[in-house]
Amino acid sequence: MATSVDPRTGLPVVAMVGGGQLARMTHQAAIALGQSLRVLATAPDESAGLVAADVRLGDHRDLAALLDLAEGATVVTFDHEHVPTEHLRALADAGHRVAPGPDALVHAQDKLVLRRALHEAGEPQPAWSEARTVHEVAAFADDVGWPVVLKTPRGGYDGKGVFVVDGADEVADLLERHGSLLVEERVAMVRELAVQVARSPYGQVAVWPVVETVQRNGVCEEVLVPAPGLDDDAATAAQELAIRIADRLGVVGVLAVELFETADGVLVNELAMRPHNSGHWTIEGSRTSQFEQHLRAVLDYPLGATDATAPVVVMANVLGGAASADGWTGPALDERVHHLMAHWPDVKLHWYGKGQRPGRKLGHVTALGTDFEEVRARAVAAARYLADGVVDPAFAFAFADDEH
Amino acid sequence: MATSVDPRTGLPVVAMVGGGQLARMTHQAAIALGQSLRVLATAPDESAGLVAADVRLGDHRDLAALLDLAEGATVVTFDHEHVPTEHLRALADAGHRVAPGPDALVHAQDKLVLRRALHEAGEPQPAWSEARTVHEVAAFADDVGWPVVLKTPRGGYDGKGVFVVDGADEVADLLERHGSLLVEERVAMVRELAVQVARSPYGQVAVWPVVETVQRNGVCEEVLVPAPGLDDDAATAAQELAIRIADRLGVVGVLAVELFETADGVLVNELAMRPHNSGHWTIEGSRTSQFEQHLRAVLDYPLGATDATAPVVVMANVLGGAASADGWTGPALDERVHHLMAHWPDVKLHWYGKGQRPGRKLGHVTALGTDFEEVRARAVAAARYLADGVVDPAFAFAFADDEH
Repeated sequence: MATSVDPRTGLPVVAMVGGGQLARMTHQAAIALGQSLRVLATAPDESAGLVAADVRLGDHRDLAALLDLAEGATVVTFDHEHVPTEHLRALADAGHRVAPGPDALVHAQDKLVLRRALHEAGEPQPAWSEARTVHEVAAFADDVGWPVVLKTPRGGYDGKGVFVVDGADEVADLLERHGSLLVEERVAMVRELAVQVARSPYGQVAVWPVVETVQRNGVCEEVLVPAPGLDDDAATAAQELAIRIADRLGVVGVLAVELFETADGVLVNELAMRPHNSGHWTIEGSRTSQFEQHLRAVLDYPLGATDATAPVVVMANVLGGAASADGWTGPALDERVHHLMAHWPDVKLHWYGKGQRPGRKLGHVTALGTDFEEVRARAVAAARYLADGVVDPAFAFAFADDEH
Repeated sequence: MATSVDPRTGLPVVAMVGGGQLARMTHQAAIALGQSLRVLATAPDESAGLVAADVRLGDHRDLAALLDLAEGATVVTFDHEHVPTEHLRALADAGHRVAPGPDALVHAQDKLVLRRALHEAGEPQPAWSEARTVHEVAAFADDVGWPVVLKTPRGGYDGKGVFVVDGADEVADLLERHGSLLVEERVAMVRELAVQVARSPYGQVAVWPVVETVQRNGVCEEVLVPAPGLDDDAATAAQELAIRIADRLGVVGVLAVELFETADGVLVNELAMRPHNSGHWTIEGSRTSQFEQHLRAVLDYPLGATDATAPVVVMANVLGGAASADGWTGPALDERVHHLMAHWPDVKLHWYGKGQRPGRKLGHVTALGTDFEEVRARAVAAARYLADGVVDPAFAFAFADDEH
């Protein structure tokens, strides 16, 4: 139960480090619970900074800013993994509740720490090693075969900090630039899956259906729910894996477990301990969204039901495309939103309010229904139209009607 | 299409007069659309003032405050009907878009104006008359029979400004206090219904299912969706009635038409031209919520799909009860929320962040399902627990488990 409350409302105050779209959508969920999310943003025009009532400006690497954020808050949580561990410990030492705690969060911050922990737990993961020298990488590749995947242990996301290398001659430069690296076998994967589970300090867990995530260039483009064609036993096993990891690491909040599906089962790729792109579909597609559930979990509230609200849900990211590039002469954003609403009245839009840049996650759309192909086509066409101004031929009739 | 946009986002800015729970929930919807609702609140701790990023403090009767609110906004809309008509005209004269416009809104502000307009339109309504003298009331009652209902034309809500009188001796005092009154027959009603329709300036309309509203002491306590036992023809007729009224009055935004169901059909009680308590169920129960739809309508965006997301939806208001009264020694609000979540993990909470006072609308809960009695029992028990700390015997086992 919450230990401190906002005297104006009698309800807790969750403080979130980071002002991106995850904080923005968490604020929406907080409003329903009678709360108002307190946000630490680096600039007032960050996604959450534009919409939250209680925005503190400051850097997540600045302990003074973190202490100011935590003052009077019930609990401090995160929309990214970039807060230094020593600052997390300093917050806890100052009597502030931090969720997830530093000992859990480090597994989402440092891929080497994660690999060691999963090894100790006996959980499935790719073959891996820590590599400080070209010789160590080459020796590892002798075992698993080239190419291998080199990863910076910290700081990578959306494909950044991940390098597929075909031979030893590419390794020296990477080691020189990044220091010690994680080296992994290149997994022969069928596809990528993800499971989200929420865990409260009390130990309650609630898991959502296993989803398929479709990536392009290391960035998530689509999430298909439930993962098409995954049999019940495999789905249950993946959910149990996620629950075991959440329990073992003492996660508090929402945990996303990213998985490689292979011919021999699933392997853990990496973890996120916060609301995650693979769970945006839950806003409309689950009785409890990941954002509400994260708040409930970090507050040690009982968790909400995770029942699906439709047989099929597809989330498609809007990644900055042609319409975000310099020199774009097509319809402006407001006009594209207008067209989107006209042609897909049942697609739900989530726009993050960020500056439009090619490749940037600018928003997402969610479609619900019963037929996978139809739902997926609808979501992808709507997202593509927002990003690129491209009209899918299947929907061109609707645009033609506009000319009348 | 929007005529002005926020330069930070390229998207419109909707300004709402009033900082209550309707503005609060509209802000949630605005966030998804890439927007941030600008709110005119009378105090910083008003419901929407606690959660919105752009809050202006001022009074809705102060033209300067209204003009400041409108400056740079795409359109001005309302969370209540109390802005003076001359101020609405002044805003429009200054070049600001106001939705709904003053000529439409007056029908939600003044019950006499509404009665005259419905009379001219030939729409069904109770027998009525304008009464300035006891004699006029008595003459009207001679026609329709005592008791009759006297209503102040302006300013009433939630049963305030409505007086059921049994004889002429009660009338003089009311006329003296309130001046000219609307007098209506006391309708022999079966129950109260409501229909919501959204209309855009372009003329597009979208209607939700007809709902039953359950009132106690003039205050809405429950909304049952769809109205139980209403046959399809009657439901369609009520929806068509709402669309006709929206069209004829030139409504822009969401219109709630409150109806009396009688043995001979429906009669129009009154109108609201804004998101309305009878539509809170749409947040989870409809593909497009009334709050998102209101934004779409006032911006002249195409309207969203109004398909239901579940066969049965019940919304129950949390009206300040025993737990809001002085001397309450039971569980505090945060603890009651905790229990609510434990026992009804699939009930959705919406808490408005307002000070707790007996009788005040403090929040609402929504339950979804397939069986009317089960869904209704769940919603009502959850709302009652929050208000009164009373455990419905049907759920007592769950509370007993807490003792372990």
